[in-house]
This record gives sequence, structure tokens and C-alpha cells, in this order.
Amino acid sequence: MNEVEAYLSARQNEALADIGAFCAIPSVSTDPAFADGMAAGASFLAHRLKRAGFPVVDIIATGGHEAVVAEWCETPGAPTVLVYGHYDVQPPDPLDKWLTPPFEPSVRDGRLYARGASDDKGPLMIPIIVAEAYGALRGRLPVNLKMLVEGEEETGSPHFEPTVARLSERLACDVVISADGAMWRADLPSVTVASRGLVALEVEVTGASKDLHSGRHGGSAPNAAWALARLLATLHDDRGNVVVKGFADGALPPDPVIEAAIAEVGFDAAAYFNEIGAPQPHPLPSGETLLTRQWLRPTLELNGLWSGYSGKGTKTVIPAAAHAKITCRLVAGQDPDAVAASIEQHLREKLPPGYGLSVARHGPGTMAFSLNSDHPALRMTEDILEELLGRKPLRVAMGATIPVGTVMKKHLGVGMVFFSFSTSDEDYHAPNEFIRISSINLGMVAWARLLDRLAGVAA
Amino acid sequence: MNEVEAYLSARQNEALADIGAFCAIPSVSTDPAFADGMAAGASFLAHRLKRAGFPVVDIIATGGHEAVVAEWCETPGAPTVLVYGHYDVQPPDPLDKWLTPPFEPSVRDGRLYARGASDDKGPLMIPIIVAEAYGALRGRLPVNLKMLVEGEEETGSPHFEPTVARLSERLACDVVISADGAMWRADLPSVTVASRGLVALEVEVTGASKDLHSGRHGGSAPNAAWALARLLATLHDDRGNVVVKGFADGALPPDPVIEAAIAEVGFDAAAYFNEIGAPQPHPLPSGETLLTRQWLRPTLELNGLWSGYSGKGTKTVIPAAAHAKITCRLVAGQDPDAVAASIEQHLREKLPPGYGLSVARHGPGTMAFSLNSDHPALRMTEDILEELLGRKPLRVAMGATIPVGTVMKKHLGVGMVFFSFSTSDEDYHAPNEFIRISSINLGMVAWARLLDRLAGVAA
Repeated sequence: MNEVEAYLSARQNEALADIGAFCAIPSVSTDPAFADGMAAGASFLAHRLKRAGFPVVDIIATGGHEAVVAEWCETPGAPTVLVYGHYDVQPPDPLDKWLTPPFEPSVRDGRLYARGASDDKGPLMIPIIVAEAYGALRGRLPVNLKMLVEGEEETGSPHFEPTVARLSERLACDVVISADGAMWRADLPSVTVASRGLVALEVEVTGASKDLHSGRHGGSAPNAAWALARLLATLHDDRGNVVVKGFADGALPPDPVIEAAIAEVGFDAAAYFNEIGAPQPHPLPSGETLLTRQWLRPTLELNGLWSGYSGKGTKTVIPAAAHAKITCRLVAGQDPDAVAASIEQHLREKLPPGYGLSVARHGPGTMAFSLNSDHPALRMTEDILEELLGRKPLRVAMGATIPVGTVMKKHLGVGMVFFSFSTSDEDYHAPNEFIRISSINLGMVAWARLLDRLAGVAA
Repeated sequence: MNEVEAYLSARQNEALADIGAFCAIPSVSTDPAFADGMAAGASFLAHRLKRAGFPVVDIIATGGHEAVVAEWCETPGAPTVLVYGHYDVQPPDPLDKWLTPPFEPSVRDGRLYARGASDDKGPLMIPIIVAEAYGALRGRLPVNLKMLVEGEEETGSPHFEPTVARLSERLACDVVISADGAMWRADLPSVTVASRGLVALEVEVTGASKDLHSGRHGGSAPNAAWALARLLATLHDDRGNVVVKGFADGALPPDPVIEAAIAEVGFDAAAYFNEIGAPQPHPLPSGETLLTRQWLRPTLELNGLWSGYSGKGTKTVIPAAAHAKITCRLVAGQDPDAVAASIEQHLREKLPPGYGLSVARHGPGTMAFSLNSDHPALRMTEDILEELLGRKPLRVAMGATIPVGTVMKKHLGVGMVFFSFSTSDEDYHAPNEFIRISSINLGMVAWARLLDRLAGVAA
């Protein structure tokens, strides 16, 4: 343990407090009701970066939620590293399922509970604290360090690509390291080399122009809830596979390295269903391993349904409208626009007669991401994890979506390596999100080593 | 026009004000948040009956919402008439669709707009005002008059039957006249001789024990919204007919008198779809006339759906639970318990593997109702409508449910005749419910004649 690692070890409580203060800010990007929380999130982050020692810190207008850019480039001859993260978080609903309030961080059983603790405020704060430590101890960083932190990750990053394109000279670098993403399992080191893309839709089916009495009109009037249910039931087969024509157009065959990793880990389906608290179907309807479906198959998931009356008791109404929110995870080769178009076309073809349909997009969507398998920074992160965890990490895919890799490659011409210390069981889009305190402490040591070694990459 | 009718004609504004005051009370029975409104509704009604001249007025505990019973039995030798109505109303949701607030009665274009104006506060107030007029002018009524007004009609009348059974001596009468129900069309006089029954269910499908991230888990975890949509899509065929095994067990063939009425009226499907603001499918998927489906076919309608995220933007969540509210309208011979059991059985058989299901009932449900075609009070109501409207009324069925007819026959041994002056286009379970002021005025004259002529029925 060198002096930087020792310094960080002595400051674990301060790091936890830093992350807690960040998580106390309700920076929910998807809901306009949280506009004040978003502004407070950007402001908090900018002040924290200044205090850490970054000489240049700016809050950047994007056309949507602001981004924060910081630069600490005072190490001539060293390579330049751009760290990516996001300060926005998921909505906290359903609020009644939280054991402690989502924006009142709470430490229990070695974990910090709060909305955003794992995704991505905890993992994002780590490199800031590490840079601060280098500055305090050595007066300079091993590398030239830039940070780009967006506020729209949870809404599909609608202004991220234009912002990177506009700032491409300022953000120029030799490698991008993402502080977002998640280690696959808490007990098995892994590095992520691919992630799924995303496209988001909202569907409205309409019948009559107003809600109608189910006695007077029942049997003769269109029921939008009924039509929506029938329509949604046509999107998959009984095994849960998407059967929308054109949905999988362009999809590339899975990467054999990842298929080999799936075969190696021997995913435990019984443990998985136990973990998520669901009954385990025998056999799995899909006929595939669960991990193959998480990493290598596209999805079409219903995220929300609403129609008619949902209060207590009965309201004998025929709903005039019914709604569904849909997101799809995409694999390499699928184009978000084409996928959205295929779904809309399918819904129009299957719509029962006598109903109206509208389909809206949420955000531009994201292509899937993959990293060259011989990227030098990828090897470094693998070595560091092996040193710290005693086992060579597995190269894995992730089911979730981080659009930045694709954008960074396109506009900055460099690869992006995931180096996040959240793990995927930390309920980051659900109630009672948490991060393991041990992961925060591990992450600080790991980032200290990574910045040190990246100094050796040719600038 | 006799002196009672003249007296009532001179008091049309007062009658409108009376009904408005009643409608200003938010007596929503289905939602516990309106408990104060329910108590205020019963109290208002009891005071109004006292003021009208009823010597005996009681608020009766039922085990649920209170009922109001009144007696004005001071005409020895005359028959006894029991008038039925209800003071509870439907929930006002969706509030943002009302042009004026639901509990702030508003007169526009010859109509009184308010929740409950048509169902059933307006039609119920009419016989009270008519009795008051007889008392004021003649010091006595033509008949002995009793009233039974419940507060649970909109929740399926769970305590109505035990209350009638318990009070059967007090409620003893020669005929029941219902002030609830609705004329079928504003431009065509009709009397209702049959109504559909009702059974109400709530369905919950569960997957995982908590909402999950759709990136991490998409493709491998159960999605309760998906399973619910697939399940609900199995309840009907493409033509909208219920395909639940056992659902129609015991259903009797339709009454030929009503089938003849359907043939006679030549229901205008294009006008119907225009009225409800829905696109007209060509041909009708069901292959039956719309009126046959409204009056003579059982239904299974979705009244509400809710699952996952329904706020603004996107939340990439896999819902842990999904819910539907269902009501069925029943035809003669169907048993509510058997229908509910058939649906639950169907849902259990069709539930995809890996999901949980629970099915709950709302209220005991109601058998369908029908009236003997030679009932003397039925002939009287037909004659009065013909005198006032210049055309012999049609004998029709109604799609909606009024359980009281069945209960009255069983416990009091008498038939029930519908005599309501609402019409079925008055949006009574939807925003902007109204009653035509002309219907109120017509109803007062009609009720004055009915009470007078019922004096001639053998007591």
C-alpha cells in the first residue's frame, strides 16, 4: 500500500459522508417536478470538484439538463484520461416501499441506502476523492484528468451526443473510463466489454371519447383497456421471445468470448429466482439460459400500464383510453429507430377494429456498445481487479444500457473502459437502492492504481 | 292539469334548487375518503323528507353506509307504495375532464350538471317533492307512501338485502316503484322490464418480490404487466365474446318481447358510435346488433389497469405486480358466485408459469332482474308516459344493474316497476354527468299522476 492508498484508507468515513451528501439531493431527471433537485445536483457536484482541486469546473448548458465538465490538466507529457459519470437518478416510486426515505441516506449493515447511491453517485464520487488525494499528497495527478458528468442518463441521454460533439476539442483524451456501469456480481470480479442498447416508447389506445358506464354500454362500446391488453399480448410468443416483424433486423451474432464466459460461470437459476423473490418456472419457458437472455438477447419490456379506475372499490366504467410504457434492450447491430418503427408497425397491424392508436418515443435511443478486446486500459483494469480480489476477472456483457461508449468512440475516437464499483444486485432502479461500503473503499484503492498506471499509456 | 300538477309547475325552480343542493354533497360510496360526504348525504335526505311532511323518518344502520327509511301512511284503505332510490354517487374521477366541478352544480343549456344529478339524486328527489305537494294542497297523500333510500348502490349494494330482510315488516307494501334506472332514450318513451346483473372482481398478478431494473433483468425476470396483458387477452375471442368456460352456465334464452323491441327500434349503429365518439368498425366484430349486446348478452369488462410506472418520461422498471378491475353484467339465470368462480378458474389455468395470482371479489354481486309483463303498475306507468309524451312507450331491457328488484320480490313478495326520469345518455358514470331540466319537470307531473292512480290498485 503506497501513501495515496494509505491516505484514502484513513479517509473512508469522509468518503461515505461525501457520497451521502450527494445522494441527499433529489436529482430525478425523468420528472419535471424535480427541476430544483437537478439544479442542486449539478451545483453540488461543481462545488465538490472545485474543492477537490480541479482548476477548471463548468456547468454546461445542453438544451436539457445541465452537464458538468471539469479539467485538471497540469501534468505535461502524461496521457489524458476522461472520466464519465452521471448525477441524475431514477424516480423514487413506489415511495411506500422504502424502509428509509430515498433522499435521506441511511447506513445499515455495511451498506449506504439512498436513491442514486449505486447508480451513479457513489461510483462517480470515488475518482473525485482519489484525484483530491493525489493533489493533497503530491501536488499533481499522475495523468491529465477530465470529467464529463451528465444529468440525463436516466432519460436516455437525449442531449449527450450533441454536447460531446460540440465540446469534442475540449474533451479530447487518450482513453475514457466510465464510473457508471456495474460489476456483475458481488462475489466475482468482472469487467464489462459490451452493453445493450435502448429504445423507449409510450403507447396509447383510445376507444370512445370519454369513459362510459359499463352497464349502459357494456358489450357494445369499445373498451380501450381490453384492446390494449390484446395488443400487448401479441408482442411475444409464449416463451417470452419478441415476435415483432423486423425487430431483430441487423442484429449481429453474439460475441463468442461472452458466450464462453456464460458457459464458464454456470449461472444458478434457482438462486436467481430466489434472489428476485419470484417462483421459478420449470422448465424455463424460453429454453435458454437466463444469462444468455440478460446479456445477448434483445427485449421488449412493459414498464407501466394504466387505464380507467385504480382507486379503492369498484367503478363500473369502460375506459376511453389505455396506456403502456415500453422499453427495449438492443443487441449489437440493432438500430433504435428501426426497432421503434417495427413495433409501431406491428401495433398498427394488430390493433382491433374500432380503436385509435398513438405511439410516442422517449428520447432518441441508443445502439448497443462493445469494446475492442485488446484495449490496453482494459488489460490494466483486469490486472488491478485481479491484484485486489485475488482472481482474474471475467469479461462479461451487461444487460443494461450505457450509451456513452458509442458516443465517445464516434466523436472522440477513443475506446471506453467500464470501471465501476457498484454491483448489479444493488436495487438501483427499485426501492431501497444501496451501495456496499466495502465497494466504495475497494474502489478508491483501485482508482488510485488505475490513474497511476494510466500514466504509462502512450499519450 | 289538476291543481297538484299546476302547483308543481309553479315550483320548477324550487325543485331544481332542491336537487342542486342534494348534488352538492360528495356522497361517494366506493371510496372511504368520502365518509363525511356519505354521512352528510343521509342527513340532508332525512331532513328534506321531514320537511316534505313525512311523519316518520329514520337513518338506519346497515353494517355499511346508512340507509334512510321514511313513512307517510295516513290514508286508511289505500294501497301502500314503497319508493326505492339511492343517495350515493359514483367517484368523480377523472376530475380534470369536468367543465365545472362535480360537486358544484351548474345549469347550462337546459341541463343541471353535477355528479349524481342523473344517478340518482335528481330522479329520487322528484317523488319527495310530489308527496310534499299533495300534503300541502290536500293534507294527505292518495296512497300510503314509504321510501327506502340506500347508500351503497354504486358499490353493489352489499348490505341492501339483509337490511330489507330485517325490515320486511316495516317495508311491507303492495308495489315497489324504483326512482332509479333510466329511460333508454331521450326521444323515445320506454319502460324497463329487465336489467342485467353484476359481479365485480379485482385481479393481481405478481412476478418478483420487488420492481427490477429492466436492463439488468430484462429477458430473465418475470414481468407482471406482461403476464397480466396475456392473461386478460384470453378472456374474450376476437369478436369480443367471453370465452371463459362455465361463464354462461344457467343463462336463460332472451325474452322474445325484448327481442321484438330491438327489431322494432332499428338501432342506428352509426349514430351510436358518433354519440360515444368512437370509430365505427365495419362490420361489427361481434356479428350482432349493438342493442342485443347491450341488453341480452353478458359482459366481462376491464374497468381499470395499473402496473409499474405511469409518471412522465421513462422508468426502466420491470413491474413486480400488475392489477385489473373487472365487472361482468349478467343475464337472467347466471349466478354471480358461479360466474366469479369460472373467471378465477380460467385465470388460474391460463396464468403463465412463474407468476402468482390473486382474485378478490367486490361485493356479493347481483342476479339479473325481470318483471311480469302483466303487472298492473307497469300498465299504469305505460299509460302515463303515453299521455304525456304522445307515444306508447316501448318495453325495454337495460344493460345496467339494479339489484333491488330481485331483493324486493324475494323479501317483500311484490314486483318492482321502474319509473325514472333520467335518460341513459346523461354520462352518469363519467365526467360532466347531467340531468335535463325538462325531464325533472316531466317527472313531477308523471309521479303526481302515478300516485293518484295507484290509489285505485287493490290494497
